[in-house]
Formats: sequence, structure tokens, C-alpha cells
Amino acid sequence: MTEVGLAKEQLDTPVLWVDLNILERNIALLVEHFRRAGVNWRPHVKGVKVPELAHMLVDAGAIGVTCAKLGEAEVMAAAGITDILVANQVVGPRKIERLVRLARTADIKVAVDNAENVNALSQAATEQQVEIGVLVDVDTGMNRTGVQPGPAVVELARQVHAASGLRFLGLMAWEGHTLVHKETDVKHGAIVRAVELLTKMAADCEAAGLPVTIVSGGGSGTYKVTPFLPNMTEIQAGGAIFSDVAYSGWGVETTPCLFVRSIVTSRPAPDRMVFDAGYKALPAWIAQPKPIGIDHIVKYSTSAEHGVITLSEPNLQIKVGDVFDFVVGYTDSTLFLHNQLYGIRNDVVENVWTVSARGMLT
Amino acid sequence: MTEVGLAKEQLDTPVLWVDLNILERNIALLVEHFRRAGVNWRPHVKGVKVPELAHMLVDAGAIGVTCAKLGEAEVMAAAGITDILVANQVVGPRKIERLVRLARTADIKVAVDNAENVNALSQAATEQQVEIGVLVDVDTGMNRTGVQPGPAVVELARQVHAASGLRFLGLMAWEGHTLVHKETDVKHGAIVRAVELLTKMAADCEAAGLPVTIVSGGGSGTYKVTPFLPNMTEIQAGGAIFSDVAYSGWGVETTPCLFVRSIVTSRPAPDRMVFDAGYKALPAWIAQPKPIGIDHIVKYSTSAEHGVITLSEPNLQIKVGDVFDFVVGYTDSTLFLHNQLYGIRNDVVENVWTVSARGMLT
Repeated sequence: MTEVGLAKEQLDTPVLWVDLNILERNIALLVEHFRRAGVNWRPHVKGVKVPELAHMLVDAGAIGVTCAKLGEAEVMAAAGITDILVANQVVGPRKIERLVRLARTADIKVAVDNAENVNALSQAATEQQVEIGVLVDVDTGMNRTGVQPGPAVVELARQVHAASGLRFLGLMAWEGHTLVHKETDVKHGAIVRAVELLTKMAADCEAAGLPVTIVSGGGSGTYKVTPFLPNMTEIQAGGAIFSDVAYSGWGVETTPCLFVRSIVTSRPAPDRMVFDAGYKALPAWIAQPKPIGIDHIVKYSTSAEHGVITLSEPNLQIKVGDVFDFVVGYTDSTLFLHNQLYGIRNDVVENVWTVSARGMLT
Repeated sequence: MTEVGLAKEQLDTPVLWVDLNILERNIALLVEHFRRAGVNWRPHVKGVKVPELAHMLVDAGAIGVTCAKLGEAEVMAAAGITDILVANQVVGPRKIERLVRLARTADIKVAVDNAENVNALSQAATEQQVEIGVLVDVDTGMNRTGVQPGPAVVELARQVHAASGLRFLGLMAWEGHTLVHKETDVKHGAIVRAVELLTKMAADCEAAGLPVTIVSGGGSGTYKVTPFLPNMTEIQAGGAIFSDVAYSGWGVETTPCLFVRSIVTSRPAPDRMVFDAGYKALPAWIAQPKPIGIDHIVKYSTSAEHGVITLSEPNLQIKVGDVFDFVVGYTDSTLFLHNQLYGIRNDVVENVWTVSARGMLT
């Protein structure tokens, strides 16, 4: 039974849906933003996961996609996306074998921050006669993965450049640590300092005779600043196509368009209502979802299967069976929980997309 | 390609696996525990989700299963589980239609706490000529769903008993609010007080001439106390079959047997290591996962795709490519993220189960 053509009201809850009018407007804004900045756009799809949406982004002007996991990249490549950066370390013989296989069907690029991993990638690529594009991952302050800025970056880049089966393409970093700053000018300064560490390393590599064609970074939380900094070639911001409560707090100016629709299952007290969306459907982990049409919320809590809203004053209007749309708290901790994403335009279902890259954890 | 018979070491990461020897021992311990208490066991499978495991529990002596969502119940019924309690409110015409359909193929029981919902259930069941078992949900202090203890419970029970198409079976509650107490005797007292509210309501219903055959409650966090309190007829504890870091803290005495195996993808500093399991595979939401074989952890953090461990002292032994097993932090916020659960005995894969009820959110 296809649900295309149904009214939004006819869908069972909880259901994840995207407002297509807003989504298209968001994508157009981002494309124009990056065009003005003169950078390429390689949207991260770890929080998008639907190949049809990835194609929509490429059709709008993205040069390809960024993935976090090899499994996601396999889904995207199988769906016909040809230019894919796995912005993460691919480690271990089983994954490297899969990466090499994938390199036969798509232009695959991968991040590295470790000499032995470079050797393993080179050996596998050489044996299987494929070429894998490589970016050196630089830690510009995030304190997660990556080589510390300095001679070690150039050294690893040189190793990659010299390795058979690998093609040194440049550098990448994610300045995600700058999102902690609430004040615009403080955050701006932190982004500039982080990105300069990356572009300085790119200059050092070039000075050492290494051909840098890609300098990649910039997420949705920094997309307004990073693209305009000199010598960045591409931006990975992806979640900004949806936006959400968290992104709105991080200065993302696109309009939230990803929602979970949920029904009131219990009204146990005048100041309390219970929904059929707990943390398995609509988590409040990183930011609290925002129900449209419910005010005076003093507490929003989730257990596995229940969302509970407590109000500061009694509400006798909202009844068991009423349905509300919630603006998602953080898209990247929500979308991947659902099997389907509904594309809705003017309250009618236009698409029922399978979240194909869901659960592609390896 | 079947992975049955592979060594654990041959599996790609991150991978969710259960130690079958420990699992079987845990199940036997729980069966014996509830047998001694003289109560039925109806394990909650919201955190189990694999029908083959549900069958294992029923084969060991459980009378049926408890589900949180109708979608889970549909998966369990389709797999041949015949006695199912949906310990949650089923609300709205679409879900009630599904519930009625399900009642044709399995003995379905559902929780109610609202008169209009009872009317809607009765009308649908009568029209479709099925009978649905009903338990009145009582709020014994959890402050989530349920009727407040008092005359309103008996009133709703009377309505159910009189309603055509419905069969009043008894009462249920979840005394989950007692888990906040760390001290054993304080927690014990809180459980006793909560459960007495429930059993008192059951006595009131019987005094009003209503036939109470089921008084259901007790989760993994209270399974040591609740079964031994008078007039409880069945216990819903399910997660205790696995146990985990959170349950260990809540006094669950079964042995943790659910693990996520993850590979070190980056060693950016002597005191930091990065794994390929972030919150999409191994969340630290409710309790922090515990890696086996890594000591001196001062910080465990997760982003979407990375797990990061910071140590209090340098470690130069652990290298990129090393693989560790993590005891899951909280099974019910972890298992449902995975597409497969591997059953492993003596380091060899014996089962590759599909997590069939994954994503059954409606």
C-alpha cells in the first residue's frame, strides 16, 4: 500500500517527515551561499541517510557527498552517487577490503591520521590495482581524531603522496569545538583561528612540493564563516538542509523543516501529557524537541517509548488522541532512528523514502 | 554469505553480540527466581526486539511477552508469540484498527487509563467481533501514564468490565521511580509502598465485584523485590536477561552479556583513543559503556560516529586497529540501534539474528 497522496493527518504516529517546500528553499539558500563564497559544497549525509536526498543535493549543485561510515558510502555508491569522501578513518583488514572494492565503482576519498593505516591502505589498493584518494585529517582543536598541526602533518602527507595506490588530495578538519561559544564574535574568532591552522598546514604541504587540491571542513554550525576564509576549497555542512532546535541555537539560518508527528496517548493530569514518541523516535539528547502549539512547557522528558511534557499551568484543551508536530531537537540524533522519511508538501505525502543508510554502522 | 561459524575476531565492527552461555544462565536464574516467588514471568521485549529470543524466553517458562509498541507486538505475533501484553496506551483510529486486526491472530492485552480510549477500543472490537484483554494502568508514583490510585481506578475498571468487545483482566503499573534510590533498604521501602498501591487497587476492584486475574508490574530494576510482594501475579522484567552497566548499578544480579565490539580508529595522543562506535552504535546516554581491558579512563565521550576515551595516564600499548569489547551502558538505548545481534558461544558465531522489531515505532 503506497502512502503517497495521503493527507498528513492520515499517517500513523510517530512519523518522521520533512516539509519539502522549506527543504527546497533551504537547499537553494545553501547552494547560493557557497557559490558566493566560491567554495565547493560536499554535504555530509551522516544525518541525511536517504540516497534520494543525496541526489537532490547533487542535482542542486553539490559536488558529491561526505560520509562518516564506509557502510553509508556503500549505500550512496550503490544508489549512484559517484564522488564520496569518507571523512573518517577506515581501519582494519575487513573495512579496507570493502573500501578497495568500493573504489572500483565510485571516486572514493578517505581521511587518514596514522602512518600504519596509510601503509595498509596502500598495500590493499596496490594489490587490487585501484587508486584511493586520501586527505590528511588535522586536529584544529576538536580534540578527537587528526594529526596535530605541525611537521607531522606534512610528514604524513608526504607518506601518502609517495604511497602506491593512494592519491594525496589535501587536508581536512572539523572545527566543531567552536560551537561551544555562544557569542557571535567570540565564535567567529575561534573558527578563524581553527581554520587558519588547517590552511597553514595546506600551505606547508604545498611549500614541501605536495599538490593540495582539497582543503575540506566546515559543518552546519560554522557554515556562515568557514566558506569565506581564504584557501578553503570545500564545505561539508549537511544538517543545515534540515535545521532543528540545536542548529538554530548554533546560528544556522535555514528554516527547520524536519518534524516528528506524535499523538497524545495519555492525559494523566491537567499539567501533564504523554506522547507516543520517546527517545527511540524523538530524543531530547542534544536539544529538546519543540512541539508546535503547546506553550508553558516546564519540563520535557523522554523514556524509551514515552515523551512526557509537564506544563507550568493546567491545560484542559489538549486531549488523548490529539496530534502534534515536533520540530526535531537535533536531526543527527533523530533521523537515523526511523525506517522511513515522509516528504510532505502542502500537507500531502509526496514521497515515502526508505532511510537506506540507517544502521550502516560499520 | 552466512557468518555463522566465524570466529568473533572475524566480524566487522562495530558489532552487537551476546554471550550465549551467560545469556542462558541469566534466563535460567530469572526463571528460577520467579518460580520461587510464585509469579508468572512476562518479560518486556522492548529492549530485546529479536523474536527468536522471545521464543527462547517462552520456551524457558515465560507465559508470554510484554511489548511497548503495537508495531513490536505485530512483529512478535507474526513470529508466533501468542500471548502479548502491550503495556502502553493504544490510541487513535489507525492504531486501534491494527490492534483489532492483531487480536484475530494472538491473545492481545492492552493498557488503558482513559474512558474515551476505552470507548473507542470497545466500539472497534465489537464492530470487528473480537475480544481484547484490558489492564487498567495505575500510576503508583512514576508520574508518567496511569490513573491515580483511588476510586477512579475502580471506575475505569468497571467501565472496561461492562464494555462489549473488551475483557477486564486486572491492573498494571511500573514502579520505575523507585530506581532513583541507591540505598537498598530505602529502595526496598519505596518499592513496597508503590506495589501496595497497586495491589490495594486490585483488592478494591475485587471488592467491587470485578474479576482481577492479572496484577502486573516489576521491571529489571525491581525484580528482586516486586515478585515476592503479595498478590502480584506477573512480572515484566526483561532487560535483566542481558544486564548492563546501568542495571548493575540498579542491583540487577544477572551477569552482563551484551557487548559492542569496536575497533580503535585513531590514537591521536598517548592519553586519547578513538573508536568506531559513537552514539549511533554504543550510546553513553543512561550509563557509560565499559570497555574490557582499558583502565584509567577519566572521560568517555561519544559523538554521532566516534567514541572517545581519555585516560589519566599515557598508554602506548593500544594501537590503531586494536579491537575491544564494551559492556553495553544501557541495553534498551543500544540494542535497538543495530540491524543484527550476533549470538556467540565460546568465541564462535552461533546465530546472526535480525533485530526484527527495530524501528517498529508506531
